[in-house]
Amino acid sequence: MQRHFDAELKTLKEKILRMGAMVEEQVAYAIKALVERDLDLARRVIENDHRVNALDVEVDEDCLRLIALHQPMAGDLRFLTTAMKISTELERMSDLAENISERAVELNEEPQLKPYIDIPRMAEHAQRMVKESLDAFVNRNSELARKVCRDDDFIDDLNHQIFRELLSFMIEDPQTTTRAIRISFISKYLERIADHATNIAELVVYLVEGKIIRHTGL
Amino acid sequence: MQRHFDAELKTLKEKILRMGAMVEEQVAYAIKALVERDLDLARRVIENDHRVNALDVEVDEDCLRLIALHQPMAGDLRFLTTAMKISTELERMSDLAENISERAVELNEEPQLKPYIDIPRMAEHAQRMVKESLDAFVNRNSELARKVCRDDDFIDDLNHQIFRELLSFMIEDPQTTTRAIRISFISKYLERIADHATNIAELVVYLVEGKIIRHTGL
Repeated sequence: MQRHFDAELKTLKEKILRMGAMVEEQVAYAIKALVERDLDLARRVIENDHRVNALDVEVDEDCLRLIALHQPMAGDLRFLTTAMKISTELERMSDLAENISERAVELNEEPQLKPYIDIPRMAEHAQRMVKESLDAFVNRNSELARKVCRDDDFIDDLNHQIFRELLSFMIEDPQTTTRAIRISFISKYLERIADHATNIAELVVYLVEGKIIRHTGL
Repeated sequence: MQRHFDAELKTLKEKILRMGAMVEEQVAYAIKALVERDLDLARRVIENDHRVNALDVEVDEDCLRLIALHQPMAGDLRFLTTAMKISTELERMSDLAENISERAVELNEEPQLKPYIDIPRMAEHAQRMVKESLDAFVNRNSELARKVCRDDDFIDDLNHQIFRELLSFMIEDPQTTTRAIRISFISKYLERIADHATNIAELVVYLVEGKIIRHTGL
């Protein structure tokens, strides 16, 4: 029974990693669609969101089934309820990748305001945070999880910097306002994706160390 | 044992309703602080966020304990894991009330851009959605939950309307840009609070009917 449970746990971890890879891809493609003004790619990201949603439901059902069937001890039970929460975080990230693509579609209808430099940097950073938060989860590595929490500051700073730059565009030339606001939304979506990765990382620290680090700093 | 479990379930429901009332109050006070330019009240909302966070942890631990101790059947098990998710949604709403207060503090440093009419309306509507989504949960009322999902459209429309109005301010007079953007953030925070209430409502429909209505319309 325990061996069977361990095998199922392994499958579950793989599914969550697969879901994470899918989210990373959604974010990467959304940004590629923005930068390369690729309307088809933006639409594909929007269409593919349902695949992540489907995996979210699957992970949920898997966890419920494992709890009901194996009645796991405290540690494994907490691992499974954490997995359910993580899956929700990933699903929300995919929604945000969809939002990025929606703004990319809108931005495509007007001339480009400026070359994108910080946004792709921010996206790469956020993607890495997603990957590392999930690696931290499946390996119960709270040190890596704490690194993810610290990395979030960089994203917040970048978001503020991008916002200030766009604000100066708007104030100098009000004709740029609509486009600048759309870009600022994209920056904000990326910041929120990083926040979700941080949520996962905080869940991992709690899972492994029993410490609540949410809102308390590290 | 079953009677004991039922009593504990009742206590849990009361705690979640208390948490919801606290979130409603946080939102109401944040908006009051904005409208009445009350700096002290804004700061109090920011300080009180930790109380909601503490309840989130409590609900989580209660649910884990109930699952481990009583090994509930499928229906009750799903109710408990749903409670854990709902508690996370509520905690995020409280974060957003904190964000509203932060913007209120910033807006307080400059002359008022315009009287607030739609923002308080939007807040009242969002608060009602929070209340109804939780009533739907504790009473397993999927009809009420579906109403909450439909109500979200009104908030989305109001957010767009507020945004368009603020955009025209910015374009006509770039001096208003910073303030207008801060107000648009507040509108967006309220929209996200309503989204969280909708998430709760969707969880309730799934709990009661076994149907996934997320992203699929009603």
